[in-house]
Amino acid sequence: MAFIAAAIAAAGAAIAAGIGNGQVISKTIEGMARQPELSGQLRGTMFIGVGLIEAVPIIAIVVSFILMSK
Amino acid sequence: MAFIAAAIAAAGAAIAAGIGNGQVISKTIEGMARQPELSGQLRGTMFIGVGLIEAVPIIAIVVSFILMSK
Amino acid sequence: MAFIAAAIAAAGAAIAAGIGNGQVISKTIEGMARQPELSGQLRGTMFIGVGLIEAVPIIAIVVSFILMSK
Amino acid sequence: MAFIAAAIAAAGAAIAAGIGNGQVISKTIEGMARQPELSGQLRGTMFIGVGLIEAVPIIAIVVSFILMSK
Amino acid sequence: MAFIAAAIAAAGAAIAAGIGNGQVISKTIEGMARQPELSGQLRGTMFIGVGLIEAVPIIAIVVSFILMSK
Amino acid sequence: MAFIAAAIAAAGAAIAAGIGNGQVISKTIEGMARQPELSGQLRGTMFIGVGLIEAVPIIAIVVSFILMSK
Amino acid sequence: MAFIAAAIAAAGAAIAAGIGNGQVISKTIEGMARQPELSGQLRGTMFIGVGLIEAVPIIAIVVSFILMSK
Amino acid sequence: MAFIAAAIAAAGAAIAAGIGNGQVISKTIEGMARQPELSGQLRGTMFIGVGLIEAVPIIAIVVSFILMSK
Amino acid sequence: MAFIAAAIAAAGAAIAAGIGNGQVISKTIEGMARQPELSGQLRGTMFIGVGLIEAVPIIAIVVSFILMSK
Amino acid sequence: MAFIAAAIAAAGAAIAAGIGNGQVISKTIEGMARQPELSGQLRGTMFIGVGLIEAVPIIAIVVSFILMSK
Amino acid sequence: MAFIAAAIAAAGAAIAAGIGNGQVISKTIEGMARQPELSGQLRGTMFIGVGLIEAVPIIAIVVSFILMSK
Amino acid sequence: MAFIAAAIAAAGAAIAAGIGNGQVISKTIEGMARQPELSGQLRGTMFIGVGLIEAVPIIAIVVSFILMSK
Amino acid sequence: MAFIAAAIAAAGAAIAAGIGNGQVISKTIEGMARQPELSGQLRGTMFIGVGLIEAVPIIAIVVSFILMSK
Amino acid sequence: MAFIAAAIAAAGAAIAAGIGNGQVISKTIEGMARQPELSGQLRGTMFIGVGLIEAVPIIAIVVSFILMSK
Repeated sequence: MAFIAAAIAAAGAAIAAGIGNGQVISKTIEGMARQPELSGQLRGTMFIGVGLIEAVPIIAIVVSFILMSK
Repeated sequence: MAFIAAAIAAAGAAIAAGIGNGQVISKTIEGMARQPELSGQLRGTMFIGVGLIEAVPIIAIVVSFILMSK
Repeated sequence: MAFIAAAIAAAGAAIAAGIGNGQVISKTIEGMARQPELSGQLRGTMFIGVGLIEAVPIIAIVVSFILMSK
Repeated sequence: MAFIAAAIAAAGAAIAAGIGNGQVISKTIEGMARQPELSGQLRGTMFIGVGLIEAVPIIAIVVSFILMSK
Repeated sequence: MAFIAAAIAAAGAAIAAGIGNGQVISKTIEGMARQPELSGQLRGTMFIGVGLIEAVPIIAIVVSFILMSK
Repeated sequence: MAFIAAAIAAAGAAIAAGIGNGQVISKTIEGMARQPELSGQLRGTMFIGVGLIEAVPIIAIVVSFILMSK
Repeated sequence: MAFIAAAIAAAGAAIAAGIGNGQVISKTIEGMARQPELSGQLRGTMFIGVGLIEAVPIIAIVVSFILMSK
Repeated sequence: MAFIAAAIAAAGAAIAAGIGNGQVISKTIEGMARQPELSGQLRGTMFIGVGLIEAVPIIAIVVSFILMSK
Repeated sequence: MAFIAAAIAAAGAAIAAGIGNGQVISKTIEGMARQPELSGQLRGTMFIGVGLIEAVPIIAIVVSFILMSK
Repeated sequence: MAFIAAAIAAAGAAIAAGIGNGQVISKTIEGMARQPELSGQLRGTMFIGVGLIEAVPIIAIVVSFILMSK
Repeated sequence: MAFIAAAIAAAGAAIAAGIGNGQVISKTIEGMARQPELSGQLRGTMFIGVGLIEAVPIIAIVVSFILMSK
Repeated sequence: MAFIAAAIAAAGAAIAAGIGNGQVISKTIEGMARQPELSGQLRGTMFIGVGLIEAVPIIAIVVSFILMSK
Repeated sequence: MAFIAAAIAAAGAAIAAGIGNGQVISKTIEGMARQPELSGQLRGTMFIGVGLIEAVPIIAIVVSFILMSK
Repeated sequence: MAFIAAAIAAAGAAIAAGIGNGQVISKTIEGMARQPELSGQLRGTMFIGVGLIEAVPIIAIVVSFILMSK
């Protein structure tokens, strides 16, 4: 039972990170193509945003590893 | 049974944070590309917004850890 | 059984808060990028709105904690 | 069985309030950014609207507490 | 079994009221921001509309209370 | 079993009435904001429409009460 | 088993009538707000349309009553 | 088992007729509001269309009655 | 078991015919309102189209009757 | 078990044919209303397209009949 | 069990072919109505496209026949 | 059990190929109708694209055949 | 049980590759039709993109083969 | 049970990577077709983005391999 639980947590984390990061990074590229002189600033905000988005999925990955070790 | 419950809570928290943060940060980047002179103000509001959004998912993560320790 | 119930309540609360807050805060940032001179007023309304939205999810979190202690 | 029922009622109430409030408050902020001189009137209508929307979810929360005490 | 039934009825009522009211009130606020001189008339129609929408969900809440007392 | 059936009928009726009424009333308010001189006529048609829409959900509520009394 | 069947039929009929009527009546109100001089003709077609739409859901309600009496 | 089958067939027929008729009649009303001088021709085509759409759902209603009599 | 099968086939046929016919007939009415002088030609194509669409659902209805007689 | 299988195959075939044909025929009628002088050519392509679309659903109908005879 | 499997494969193949072909053929007709002088070339590409799309569904039909013969 | 597995893999492969190919080929036809002088180049890229898309579904078909032979 | 698992992994991989590749290749063809002089560069990026997208689905295919050999 | 868990994790990872990468790479190609002189910069950001997106799915793949070895 703990294995299924670990898989649910890992799959949920992957999907959440995929949706969130995909949305942010594609908007960044769209913004860079529109205004190339801002590319440094936009990329910087993108790194901060990706870091903030991946915080909770990575905790869910940790939950998944704890569940597997039980 | 408690393991499945912990996984549901963790996956729900990850997805909720991914959707909410992705929406806010991508709007911020879109706004910065449109009006670069407001980037400081927009980024400040983004940090407040991310903090407000992650409040409830992080409590759900706490629920998940409590359920795992039972 | 009570554990699954606690997880459902916590996950529902997280998703509800994520959707509601994400929508409000992203509209605020969009409005600030369009009219920077209103940023104080918009941010004030945003805080009120986030408070009103999180009222019911936080009660659901309380339900979740009560269910876990049973 | 009553625990699952309480969780379903609480989660449904949270999601209903999240969707309804998010929609109303984001429209209010959009309207304020378009016409700042109406902000008092719009915010007043927003408070009435949030009150009307949260009436039924709060009764559902009451149903949830009654179910937990059984 | 009656508890689950009460929870389904309460959650359905909350979601129905949330969707219907959210749609009507947000259209009212949008209309007020476009034509401020009609705000009294629009708000009056909004109150009638909210009353008409909440008629059936409140009967469903009554069904929920009857089911709980059984 | 009859309790679950009553809850399904009541919840379906609430959701049907919420969707239908919300759509009609929000279109009425939109129409009134566009042409204020027609507000009497539009509100009259709205009352007829709400009456016609609520006919079948109220029969479903009756079905729900009959099922509860069994 | 017959009770659940009656509830499914009643709920389906309510939802079908709600969607169909809501769509027709809201288009009628939209049309009346655009061309007020046609309001009689449009309202007449609306009554015919509502009658045609409610034919099958009312037969489903009849099915529901027959199932309850078994 | 035959009762559930009758309910599924009746509910499916109601939903199918509701979606199809609602789409056709609302397009007719939209067309009449745009070109009032064609209202007779459009209404005639509407009656033919409603008849053609309701052919299969009514056969499904017949299936439902046959299933109930078994 | 054969009764449920007959109901699934009948409901699927009704929904398929409802979606397909509703789409074709509403496009026809839209086309007639735009160019009234083509109404004969469009209506002719509509009859052919409805005939072609209803071919497979009617075979599914036949499948449903065969399943009921077993 | 074979009866349910036959019903699934028949319903899937009906829905697939309904979606595909409805899309093709409604585009044809839209094209004819825009350019009436091409109506012969468009109708010819429509017949070819309907034939190509119905190839696989009709094989699925054959599968359904084979499953019923087992 | 093999019968259900055959039905799933056949229904999936029918739906896949219906969606893919419907999309390609309706785009072809739209393109022919816009530029009639290219109709030969577009129809040729349409035949190639339909052939490429139907490759995998027809293999799935073969899988279905193999499963039925077991 | 292996039969159901083979059917799931085959149906998934068919749907994946149908969606992917339909999207690519319809874009190609749209591009050819807009710029007929590029039709050779676009058709070449279409063949490469269809080949790349069908790589993984065909492996899934192979998985399906291996599962059937077990 | 391992067979069902292999089928789930293979079907998920096929659908993931179909969606991702279809989106990338159709955008490439759209870009080539708009600016034919960039077709070499766009096609090069397309090959890199397809390679990056198919990395994870092919690992999932490997997982599927490992599961089948157990 | 561990096999199903491994398959869920692998399929979730594949779908997450497919959606995220497809979105990012298609936006890159769209941006390159609009402004060819930025293609180096956009492709660089694309590689960073793909790397950031695939981080969590690859951890989910690792979870899948660990679950298979148990």
